[in-house]
Amino acid sequence: MSKKPLILITNDDSINAKGIASLVKAMQSLGDIVVVAPDTVQSGMGHAITIHHPLRLKPSDVFGDIEAYTCSGTPVDCVKLAIYEILKRRPDLLVSGVNHGSNAATNVLYSGTMSAAVEGAIEGIPSIGFSLLDFDEDADFDASIEYATKISKLVLQNGLSKGTCLNVNIPKGKIDDLSGMKICRQGKAYWEDSFDKRQDPFGGSYYWLTGDYRNTDKGEDTDLWALGQNYVSIVPTQFDMTAHHLISNLNEWDLS
Amino acid sequence: MSKKPLILITNDDSINAKGIASLVKAMQSLGDIVVVAPDTVQSGMGHAITIHHPLRLKPSDVFGDIEAYTCSGTPVDCVKLAIYEILKRRPDLLVSGVNHGSNAATNVLYSGTMSAAVEGAIEGIPSIGFSLLDFDEDADFDASIEYATKISKLVLQNGLSKGTCLNVNIPKGKIDDLSGMKICRQGKAYWEDSFDKRQDPFGGSYYWLTGDYRNTDKGEDTDLWALGQNYVSIVPTQFDMTAHHLISNLNEWDLS
Repeated sequence: MSKKPLILITNDDSINAKGIASLVKAMQSLGDIVVVAPDTVQSGMGHAITIHHPLRLKPSDVFGDIEAYTCSGTPVDCVKLAIYEILKRRPDLLVSGVNHGSNAATNVLYSGTMSAAVEGAIEGIPSIGFSLLDFDEDADFDASIEYATKISKLVLQNGLSKGTCLNVNIPKGKIDDLSGMKICRQGKAYWEDSFDKRQDPFGGSYYWLTGDYRNTDKGEDTDLWALGQNYVSIVPTQFDMTAHHLISNLNEWDLS
Repeated sequence: MSKKPLILITNDDSINAKGIASLVKAMQSLGDIVVVAPDTVQSGMGHAITIHHPLRLKPSDVFGDIEAYTCSGTPVDCVKLAIYEILKRRPDLLVSGVNHGSNAATNVLYSGTMSAAVEGAIEGIPSIGFSLLDFDEDADFDASIEYATKISKLVLQNGLSKGTCLNVNIPKGKIDDLSGMKICRQGKAYWEDSFDKRQDPFGGSYYWLTGDYRNTDKGEDTDLWALGQNYVSIVPTQFDMTAHHLISNLNEWDLS
């Protein structure tokens, strides 16, 4: 049996995205790879799981000799199928991405890429989500490959604290244009949504969700700040959503 | 203009679920109500948003004179459409549910009900998700109505700290069988998944996601513990997923 680390790769832009091909390329020097990725684009699916439809799973030869599968479900479904149905042993590392577009700040909540990494963390697997700040289908992932390799090596060496994963965002640009890496906290920001209302050819109205992302955080320790300074941002991310600091405050309410 | 609080109601079990009808009933004594809920079941949709399909929005008379709409999207889509397209002023309170089934512990991540409340919190609206520990379509929501009223009143009086919402789970049973309310932290637990593999009539294989929920947390301050003691559990929940305690640790890594 191979002594190399077993690395599970997934994403939310589908198995056909350039970003996941880049990640496969990056991981080849680090271990044995299995890819389980959505068969269609699953951006914005957050931590969704498929419970009202059956899931389909098919082998794929899109990466040649590398063991790969497509799944009809969400990124989190891919992780669950990989762990409980496909893999013969637990992976040593889960990497998700490289996403086409930022998952910094509160985007972590909407992101299928990051939710796959969070699911890995729930399963106790050291997990990392990578995202490039470029939505272009044909984006340049050269710098992403370098940083994904470097950060994955660090995680394989050092491990990750139980219950956590990493949210890594990489600025657009050549490797020499980037400032290095920075450990950050998740910035405070929100989508100022607007809906583009249209009429279909049959007279019915429908909406497209659009919007602008508003950074409301002046801190110089956030991922948004670091990315603005051309740093690769690394946010240690946990799935304990308890606002622990509020527990004593709420206990002062009249709960009788 | 009405001086009453404006209360936005949504859920993930669809506008036709008994749980949301119970919540509408509970909120009628507290303010003016607008309902925006999915037109189909959206359980397990987490924080998903709809960006690759157009969204449909239709007025509904399912609650008689109460202003109500159905949306073709997810619970988070409902909240965004309500705030940015439907409501003429910002709501004073957002309540989501009452969900048919538990959203305690790590279920908060998969839950459409709770993701709607988290989206409300991102928008700065005091928000609460309510869930009853009973998946039955015809579950008894009498105790839920009492507690939803009580807790919503407390939130309208006291407000909620910025960036937080409440995750409320209610044990099954009559009001007199319950032990009262407890402020808790999110329990550590995970789904031991298993996939039920079947063959369709055409020879293709497909999977249903099933599993058992494993509580790995011995603490007596968790929501799972409180629910086991027949308490209504209240977890203050935040959307800052940063593992702040790890930032100094990661800064010791060789990031050069």
